[in-house]
Amino acid sequence: MPLSEFALIERYFRSCGVQRADVALGVGDDAALLRSPEGSELVAAIDTLVAGVHFPHGSPAASIGHRALAVNLSDLAAMGARPAWALLALTLPQAEEAWLGEFAAGFDRLARTHQVALVGGDTTQGPLTVTVQLLGHVPRGAALTRSGARPGDALFVSGTPGDAAAGLAVEQGRLAPPAEARAHLRERFLLPTPRMALGERLRDFASACIDVSDGLLGDAGKLAGASRAGAELAFDELPISEPLVAALGAERARELALTGGDDYELCFAVRPENVARLLHELPPQRWGYTRIGALREAAGVVVVRDGIVMEFSHSGYVHFA
Amino acid sequence: MPLSEFALIERYFRSCGVQRADVALGVGDDAALLRSPEGSELVAAIDTLVAGVHFPHGSPAASIGHRALAVNLSDLAAMGARPAWALLALTLPQAEEAWLGEFAAGFDRLARTHQVALVGGDTTQGPLTVTVQLLGHVPRGAALTRSGARPGDALFVSGTPGDAAAGLAVEQGRLAPPAEARAHLRERFLLPTPRMALGERLRDFASACIDVSDGLLGDAGKLAGASRAGAELAFDELPISEPLVAALGAERARELALTGGDDYELCFAVRPENVARLLHELPPQRWGYTRIGALREAAGVVVVRDGIVMEFSHSGYVHFA
Repeated sequence: MPLSEFALIERYFRSCGVQRADVALGVGDDAALLRSPEGSELVAAIDTLVAGVHFPHGSPAASIGHRALAVNLSDLAAMGARPAWALLALTLPQAEEAWLGEFAAGFDRLARTHQVALVGGDTTQGPLTVTVQLLGHVPRGAALTRSGARPGDALFVSGTPGDAAAGLAVEQGRLAPPAEARAHLRERFLLPTPRMALGERLRDFASACIDVSDGLLGDAGKLAGASRAGAELAFDELPISEPLVAALGAERARELALTGGDDYELCFAVRPENVARLLHELPPQRWGYTRIGALREAAGVVVVRDGIVMEFSHSGYVHFA
Repeated sequence: MPLSEFALIERYFRSCGVQRADVALGVGDDAALLRSPEGSELVAAIDTLVAGVHFPHGSPAASIGHRALAVNLSDLAAMGARPAWALLALTLPQAEEAWLGEFAAGFDRLARTHQVALVGGDTTQGPLTVTVQLLGHVPRGAALTRSGARPGDALFVSGTPGDAAAGLAVEQGRLAPPAEARAHLRERFLLPTPRMALGERLRDFASACIDVSDGLLGDAGKLAGASRAGAELAFDELPISEPLVAALGAERARELALTGGDDYELCFAVRPENVARLLHELPPQRWGYTRIGALREAAGVVVVRDGIVMEFSHSGYVHFA
């Protein structure tokens, strides 16, 4: 039975995510009415996933729902913000109930994990495209930005970048790793984990922060550039996962950690005098981050191994390049 | 010369719309940082336009930029809200500089008219799809909703609905009106005027409000339904424009006023005891609205002519119907 747009929205999205007391009016009117906490700044991000560009055609619907929210959560994590409200613009070729149910379930699970309410949306017919707008809060003046770093600041990254790019290659049949590596890498692409708790804690430590979505090398370059500096990364310090090494070997794993996309990890800078406090209060083995280099005066990002600067053919995924 | 995504965003969208003092951080970081006025509620809407669904393939880029913002402005007008900040998610098959310049100019002109700042965005490659997320404010507790009307309330509509649907038919070559009607109708589709000033003023008068985007009959029905009531519209009272009558004749013009889409007018209810004050303080001839009927107890919307209930084959544009 075909469902009208209104029934669709009602059925799958009205109870998506958590209920929040700060939502005066949610899905179903012309717009949502929301109440921000006093003394806070509103933090707003928007990101789109397009079928065939950001995920393969035929990706699991639950993964698409998860990722559409995760990529925006990751933007808020990079600002040190706490998420609150999401709006969803979903364009679909047709309304398949099974697909919608799985999509909504994937979105819902991640929304509940991070106390996000879905407060509005728009469902339209067309090529599969998902845009999520995410709103959250940060104490006034406390947000992390890309531009606060200085030469000499230490540079860190969370997690093990490169896994998601390898997972995408597995999904596309371009990479066939051993079975146990395969499962890990696919999950890192299909269900990335935005680093919300780390982002909020980093407000007390980081001088700058960016989320790693287009490749570590490129995104570290954006952080450095926004801070009017450059950066030097140590190739042998790059954190790589055992599954990625099992799939590619350590050398290619580190290359992918630099250039792969879709990690949704955090890359952040810390003043030298704050590094000891960071390592003490947020133990790296528990919080899952690694020192990978430092900011420097000279513009650009270089990767160094045994004192030699390495060359890379590209610095991350560039649309329209 | 191909432009990277980052250069694209920088070039066309960094200075789009007005600069606002309440934007602590705009386009260019992971998320925007925004400062809401004290005592306000945040109002959030999201709407998507898809090529071939919401506008014909090959529509003027300036119209697409204008309409993507206008449809969201209209949602905020229906809440009685004042707009402040927009985020733009633009999916494009390729980055054509001329197209982007015109799209940005169309968006920019309307944004400046309503003091909107563009504070964030995402540009991706894929089938042409434009999603705008619009944020604004309303004094706490003062927002208009769809659900506040009661049986007996008078029902009004702004402007002359049906013009935009006829304009779309002209664009698609399905309607060939006289030249002067043609220009008016096309403009009403390509460059709709959201009723921002009327929406804000209606906070003092209306019991409920909705924006007319899917056809007056259907949207009046949504207002009535949300208010747990029905509505009765007077066919001969429906406001129709001279160009629409020139194109279709008065009878078909009124039918299109009921069932056409893309009007972006306001349909609103007013308690009987407030109607005289409304007509006095917001003179209809100056503010451009018309009384078209009233709310009633019985569910559903009926259209009445000479005491007889008329039948309509459809009640507005329904996606996935």
